[in-house]
Amino acid sequence: MKKHITLIALLLLSITVNSQIVYHDASVFPLLGKATQSTATRYERLPDSLRKISRPPLWELGQNSAGLAVRFRSNSTTIAAKWNLLLDRYMNHMTPTGTKGLDLYCLQDGKWVFVNSGRPNGKESTVTIISDMKPEEREYMLYLPLYDGVTSLAIGVDSLSEISQPKVDLPVRTKPIVFYGTSILQGCSASRPGMAHTNILSRWLNRETINLGFSGNGQLDLEIADVITNVDASMYILDFVANATVEQMKERADKFYTIIRSRHPDTPILFVEDPIFTHTRFDQRIAQEVKERNETINAFFQLLKKRGEKNIYFLSSRDMLGHDGEATVDGAHFTDLGFMRYAELLYPVIKKHMK
Amino acid sequence: MKKHITLIALLLLSITVNSQIVYHDASVFPLLGKATQSTATRYERLPDSLRKISRPPLWELGQNSAGLAVRFRSNSTTIAAKWNLLLDRYMNHMTPTGTKGLDLYCLQDGKWVFVNSGRPNGKESTVTIISDMKPEEREYMLYLPLYDGVTSLAIGVDSLSEISQPKVDLPVRTKPIVFYGTSILQGCSASRPGMAHTNILSRWLNRETINLGFSGNGQLDLEIADVITNVDASMYILDFVANATVEQMKERADKFYTIIRSRHPDTPILFVEDPIFTHTRFDQRIAQEVKERNETINAFFQLLKKRGEKNIYFLSSRDMLGHDGEATVDGAHFTDLGFMRYAELLYPVIKKHMK
Repeated sequence: MKKHITLIALLLLSITVNSQIVYHDASVFPLLGKATQSTATRYERLPDSLRKISRPPLWELGQNSAGLAVRFRSNSTTIAAKWNLLLDRYMNHMTPTGTKGLDLYCLQDGKWVFVNSGRPNGKESTVTIISDMKPEEREYMLYLPLYDGVTSLAIGVDSLSEISQPKVDLPVRTKPIVFYGTSILQGCSASRPGMAHTNILSRWLNRETINLGFSGNGQLDLEIADVITNVDASMYILDFVANATVEQMKERADKFYTIIRSRHPDTPILFVEDPIFTHTRFDQRIAQEVKERNETINAFFQLLKKRGEKNIYFLSSRDMLGHDGEATVDGAHFTDLGFMRYAELLYPVIKKHMK
Repeated sequence: MKKHITLIALLLLSITVNSQIVYHDASVFPLLGKATQSTATRYERLPDSLRKISRPPLWELGQNSAGLAVRFRSNSTTIAAKWNLLLDRYMNHMTPTGTKGLDLYCLQDGKWVFVNSGRPNGKESTVTIISDMKPEEREYMLYLPLYDGVTSLAIGVDSLSEISQPKVDLPVRTKPIVFYGTSILQGCSASRPGMAHTNILSRWLNRETINLGFSGNGQLDLEIADVITNVDASMYILDFVANATVEQMKERADKFYTIIRSRHPDTPILFVEDPIFTHTRFDQRIAQEVKERNETINAFFQLLKKRGEKNIYFLSSRDMLGHDGEATVDGAHFTDLGFMRYAELLYPVIKKHMK
């Protein structure tokens, strides 16, 4: 009888213990999506050396964790997360989950499958992302916020489960794909971090992608070309046209290109046209601006071709957003529908040309 | 000389005046999407007689303006809006634009085309939705917030332009389509009001739709069946399974159905299965719940067939969200990608069966 009581007590204890979530600092796990390791804090995108060099808004956007993801492995039945934000930013055309939430994917039969998002509660969040799973070993990827900074991150698992380094080297980390650009590139307005097109493409190609999108500030700042050249990439995708003025493109596009090309003579470089923003059907001023910017980038690309530049490619934006006018939240910023369409357009182009 | 100065002064005055926006109370324009006119205030969905009868959360959700839209016509170069919200609600898995913003569409060659959204600034917003248009006569539809109430709404146009009653009777208002259901039906998590699938389908079918989605509260409350029967509809779509428990369905589904059918013996009624929530690939508890709810609704539908009920249809949720697991923000609530896929699944079914 006493034995039975002890056994029952142990069982109950085990259930209680197992239902406790223990948090593990995520800094011990691989972090994907960084162009440089020389950042002041772990979850930033620009090297600390640019703090006093880059324009302040550009520097601050570098502190947003767009495109960063933590890889780990666990057999826990529950995955939770605790994270602290730099800003707790509010945006009226993004979900808080996209702006400052987390997004968990799991590798199944070689493909990354959406598990669930971590929906933020404020500057500090402690959230169960998924629960009631079978206790099986799984490989995970946890995407970080698109439009805020992360000052600390811990992953929670059942106290009796294990969390460990990934055993599968996917997505492939050698020769990542580097994207440079605008708010859209940074992921505005994906509903959750995994739906930024750079993250979608990373999953589809099973290759690390690096997101150097800087909302409103993809203005060909030359120090960013230096950051880009430090990555030994399979392809560079330059998608800045919505942010750069005609004057900025005329003054800096060639310098920006040449910085990259001089260090990477053979790496494919893809230029992307300005999206045909859906409200250009109505807003004549914006329609004219898009037209002028696209004439400028087309002329620049023709110039590069004429002078014999190799391994350069050009993507028309004609089919980028589909043709029903529905794929943006505000005429300009892509919803998940827009990002899916854009990823579908980019995928075969990257697949064909990447080294 | 004096004449010239007068002319220039008049021209300048004209430009100044024209650049001023004058606001017109929207209450003079047709309001689409209401099941009943007997509401306490204009932008509500449930009759005031239910205020003391319906469960409080259900009643309060009836004050959300999901699916309501104002129709008007104007030749203004700018369309602006001023609106006051009942709650100024915050949701971490929706954009504020979807929760409490506006969404403008324009009729072009018989099709409704997205113009732009009105992004909210707080409890009171004054926002330019679109500007720099050619001064042409256009037919507009302005969707109201999905998850908040509107206590007042005014539409702003250029002071020298005209705003008037619509001249085109689209979408068709006789025999609307009535949808009853859950948070998803109410539009969670569309990026902007126009992307709730009931609004997408209204545009594609050019037929008025009535949204009786009540977040978490599509629990077969019988007074809602009465509200539904008061609409002389072309089709009733009952999409409540994600909210109703197995017990609620067993107790009330037949009563709910019979209230509608007794008043509308020939009108097609479509039952919709619970969505296969994307996180059911991982969460065993939710997977089991969905399975049980769908077994219940399937059994109920078979019962109706066996007893000889006519004009009833059943929609499997197998293809509702696609098969890539990407179409929700949190496993359960549809993004624009999910709503587009759901609308594509529903469109041919409704088109085929609606009276």
